[in-house]
Amino acid sequence: MPIGKFMMSGAGSRCAACRYLRRRCSKDCIFSPHFPSSNPQRFAYVHRIYGASNVAKMLQRVSEFERSHAADSLHLEAKCRVEDPVYGCVGLISRLQRQIHNLESEIAMTRALVMMYESSLDRRKGSANGH
Amino acid sequence: MPIGKFMMSGAGSRCAACRYLRRRCSKDCIFSPHFPSSNPQRFAYVHRIYGASNVAKMLQRVSEFERSHAADSLHLEAKCRVEDPVYGCVGLISRLQRQIHNLESEIAMTRALVMMYESSLDRRKGSANGH
Repeated sequence: MPIGKFMMSGAGSRCAACRYLRRRCSKDCIFSPHFPSSNPQRFAYVHRIYGASNVAKMLQRVSEFERSHAADSLHLEAKCRVEDPVYGCVGLISRLQRQIHNLESEIAMTRALVMMYESSLDRRKGSANGH
Repeated sequence: MPIGKFMMSGAGSRCAACRYLRRRCSKDCIFSPHFPSSNPQRFAYVHRIYGASNVAKMLQRVSEFERSHAADSLHLEAKCRVEDPVYGCVGLISRLQRQIHNLESEIAMTRALVMMYESSLDRRKGSANGH
């Protein structure tokens, strides 16, 4: 296989980031483990929102073992921002908070119903014991 | 009041972004309405995570009327990322999703209790009518 001028020497193709940035993919490329060439869109999202150098900085700020989680969460946030340029994933947070509010109201109503039944059963028991 | 070389001409001080970037704050500065000089930390967060030019691009992508919401959500996401470099606000999304799961379980249990009381009351009514 011919090694192109942008190919990683002797180890197959470049990662999605190096391919996008049209540069050589080094053995210790910070993007390589998290942005495979098979998924160019994943890097395109984070590049569009943060820029490559900010993504690299953010990945370098966390430990090697946490980098895949950081890359995943950066990808998710960037995708949300591309899809919703006004609210990004804060839009999702607002929807989840509204859902929690609705569920809490429903729990309060259902609990009130339980208490009503309990006191009704207590009264019936009391009147049954009284006779 | 003396007008410094970085001051907005005749209209007071620069916004937090122009102050941070040590540049003149023009009348049509995209940051100015959303990053007041009274809150330098707000701009520092988005600058650290996205970089000034990416923030400007993202604000320009949305309509003038939606820009304050976009600035607020960018600030919130950036603050989350600074505080949690691995998960950012995706960590908050995961916590909210777990909370929703727990609330749904609680609703299911409380509803089961309601159904149990209802059938118990129905049986009592049935036996009261039978005698």
